[in-house]
Amino acid sequence: MGKNLERLRQRLAQIYDINAAANLLEWDQQTYMPPGGADERAYQLATLRRLAHELLVSDETGEALEAARQEVADPDSDSDEARLVWRTGHEYEKSRKVPGEWVSEFNRTTSLAHATWQEARAEADFGRFAPALRNVVELRRQYVSFFAPYDHPYDPLLDDFELGMKTAQVQAVFDALRPRQVALVKAIAEHGSAVQDDFLHQPFDEGKQWQFGLEIAQRLGYDLQRGRQDRSAHPFTTSFGLGDVRITTRLDPNDLTVGLFATLHEAGHAMYEQGISPSLARSPLADGASLGVHESQSRLWENLVGRSRPFWQAFYPRLQEYFPEQLGEVDLERFYRAINKVQPSFIRVEADEATYNLHIMLRFELEQALVAGDLAVADLPLAWNEKMQDYLGLTPPDDAKGVLQDVHWSAGLLGYFPTYALGNLVAAQLWARMAGDIPDLEAQIAAGELSPLLGWMREHVHRHGAKFAPAELVRRVTGNDLTPEPYLDYLQSKFGAIYGL
Amino acid sequence: MGKNLERLRQRLAQIYDINAAANLLEWDQQTYMPPGGADERAYQLATLRRLAHELLVSDETGEALEAARQEVADPDSDSDEARLVWRTGHEYEKSRKVPGEWVSEFNRTTSLAHATWQEARAEADFGRFAPALRNVVELRRQYVSFFAPYDHPYDPLLDDFELGMKTAQVQAVFDALRPRQVALVKAIAEHGSAVQDDFLHQPFDEGKQWQFGLEIAQRLGYDLQRGRQDRSAHPFTTSFGLGDVRITTRLDPNDLTVGLFATLHEAGHAMYEQGISPSLARSPLADGASLGVHESQSRLWENLVGRSRPFWQAFYPRLQEYFPEQLGEVDLERFYRAINKVQPSFIRVEADEATYNLHIMLRFELEQALVAGDLAVADLPLAWNEKMQDYLGLTPPDDAKGVLQDVHWSAGLLGYFPTYALGNLVAAQLWARMAGDIPDLEAQIAAGELSPLLGWMREHVHRHGAKFAPAELVRRVTGNDLTPEPYLDYLQSKFGAIYGL
Repeated sequence: MGKNLERLRQRLAQIYDINAAANLLEWDQQTYMPPGGADERAYQLATLRRLAHELLVSDETGEALEAARQEVADPDSDSDEARLVWRTGHEYEKSRKVPGEWVSEFNRTTSLAHATWQEARAEADFGRFAPALRNVVELRRQYVSFFAPYDHPYDPLLDDFELGMKTAQVQAVFDALRPRQVALVKAIAEHGSAVQDDFLHQPFDEGKQWQFGLEIAQRLGYDLQRGRQDRSAHPFTTSFGLGDVRITTRLDPNDLTVGLFATLHEAGHAMYEQGISPSLARSPLADGASLGVHESQSRLWENLVGRSRPFWQAFYPRLQEYFPEQLGEVDLERFYRAINKVQPSFIRVEADEATYNLHIMLRFELEQALVAGDLAVADLPLAWNEKMQDYLGLTPPDDAKGVLQDVHWSAGLLGYFPTYALGNLVAAQLWARMAGDIPDLEAQIAAGELSPLLGWMREHVHRHGAKFAPAELVRRVTGNDLTPEPYLDYLQSKFGAIYGL
Repeated sequence: MGKNLERLRQRLAQIYDINAAANLLEWDQQTYMPPGGADERAYQLATLRRLAHELLVSDETGEALEAARQEVADPDSDSDEARLVWRTGHEYEKSRKVPGEWVSEFNRTTSLAHATWQEARAEADFGRFAPALRNVVELRRQYVSFFAPYDHPYDPLLDDFELGMKTAQVQAVFDALRPRQVALVKAIAEHGSAVQDDFLHQPFDEGKQWQFGLEIAQRLGYDLQRGRQDRSAHPFTTSFGLGDVRITTRLDPNDLTVGLFATLHEAGHAMYEQGISPSLARSPLADGASLGVHESQSRLWENLVGRSRPFWQAFYPRLQEYFPEQLGEVDLERFYRAINKVQPSFIRVEADEATYNLHIMLRFELEQALVAGDLAVADLPLAWNEKMQDYLGLTPPDDAKGVLQDVHWSAGLLGYFPTYALGNLVAAQLWARMAGDIPDLEAQIAAGELSPLLGWMREHVHRHGAKFAPAELVRRVTGNDLTPEPYLDYLQSKFGAIYGL
């Protein structure tokens, strides 16, 4: 590696270290931090994120970047060096437009807002969260203004999570999805009685739930030598390096599926980062290609694997061993149908596959309105409930089951939600391609053999880390641009069979 | 506050934030981090500690400090401002002598050494730890060289933990202590059969041990809204701000006292920091006056309170409720005598009060020899075992119970151990003074009323944080210089009664 590339890497490694420490501050805030730590934690996050920002946007980084660029033999190649310079260039240019003062203020505000959100959610009291959320939205509107002109004020936010993606593209994808997804849900509703899941809703010992979830996560390939699981109000995955990628989950003592599928989902995220090539460690490439690609991995393991018949052919007997009293008399087919029951519901992370994207579209629309200034924070609960009625025919009994359910806004993550729906699409597209490469994929899964699947993902997706923009990665791996067809085909085929449509 | 003082405070607050994040990285490393995180964690600690160091020793800090000094009306006053400038001046001058490269290397080395120590200790294999320890000792010898000339090569290390204290002073104190402490242990040995403690060594449910320890810690005054307890290989206290002061403990399923007294000890540390005046938050004064004063608090709650008869008059019935099977038939007097049994033993943190300081003297001598270059790391286990035989008449069965038992050297904390013995002395000196101020102190403790005691400590010690050098604080509070008399009197009186000397 050239001298200037090495200089750039050293600098980026320091920035990585600082951000890793900030990630730990955030992980701790959501898992173990006592309430009294909230104020000082907010300062700490502000200081660290600002320091990382200032190191990135400094003239020294700009010079190191420019000098390194000269050393890259072929800037269009797939080499680690060429891609590092490309990705760093993008982040450098974007970050230069953002004042350090804003970074500091934003991180302090969102850290405090997180604590407030936790309390407000626990008490189902949106009014308690509203002032904090107003500050967050105002800061996000300010953020957007740094990037004017733009096609759409939502674009700069979306691009942070989905490099290169435009709001109009997401809108087009959603417009194509919505009618077919709504039609599917409607058709299913007419055959609703075909699936019973009462037995999932009864007491399940939390210790056993925890143990089974971790056992399965490890069977998928989640490496606990380089990870661990803890509890938090909202499940998430975070990493402090390629050797330490952690997940969290939450448990419902009366619903087996809440914790189990959260664990599978987060393990999907975590395996992605555990699979990144060690050559990319401590660099901006030691990350997923985008949040959408990240969600493709979590949603794939949660749903395409974790809610599939072959998977439970392999693991249902084990689950029955854990819960003989609850599941001993329930056969595989009933279980499989139950975990795939389609029913409009309040909570996004617990939504079935057929209705899930409707939760996302709702948030996408509300976020755009907030960012454009067309919707005041005070009016958000009403707007939420109206859209829930429109899309899912439900009105939440309280704000904890409605507008307060997700952690994202308290963390300032506006522009993030669409990536979940994109992830669903990418997952189905990857699956279709993988099924071509591994003809006996289903048989392998049914035999409890998950390593060929993980191996394929490692080879085609994981190891590249953030070397490619998401659109480019999808094209490289599948040979096609992002398209909703494989996803819709998957839903149609799966739920058509279950519900006899 | 003047403009320049404010500028200085802002700068110091940022440095505080970075160090708080580094403390969390270390806490996590000892509690939850999976093994795979060790390498990257070492880089993170190196980067953060170095950043904090560089911010501190920068010319900007020097200028802000000088300008702030001009704004302090009376530099000799006890005002927060005057003391902040004094303490920062000391840290600035000392840190300026240390290259950033050393800070980085030292933190990376000790972070890796910690992981190695954990493995080596688990396997009682000193050879596995030796190369890492050699690096640590070498770095510490380098560190000492930055401060030449000095009276004694151990002085710069000691001063990091005990501001202003010289090796010769510690030596003089230890020389005064040793003969009387050895004589006491010998006299007790001749009456050894007077105390039986078999009933402490039987199975005690770990969950109940944990619960009882936390209950008692809270009764002492440890605030769990601003703290928490976790498990670690070696108990410790750390803080990420005045609102988040955490302790750890370890449990022995067959020995009630290991976890219980570790919790009382660490809660003593933690209550000190929880009691620091909020006006000192996010500054170098948001800390204990020294490690010795810190240990005075931990040892006071652990021993002068936690191994006293009045304390167990209040809490022994509750302990019996937790463990009726083990303790139901054991009366208070037998319990009190058992937890005060004097018996030379291998493990410092579990040592009784009469032999404890002998463990410290051993380490003090070995550390001096390591730093002076008179003892090679390879020869350390032999030297350890010889001194154990000399001082305590014991030879450890393996290195886990010998030279590998403490976490300190892996963390580079050479110069730290003497502060434990100093803490014992300070604790007794403070106690004597407090007993004068609160005549019915023992009766209050026996009634379970611990808040007057904590209140006295808050008023006279805690709230000042690091505003005063340890020697100055001891003089302020007790009216005297540090002296071993109250401590020796305390031991003599307590153990004289128990053993009928």
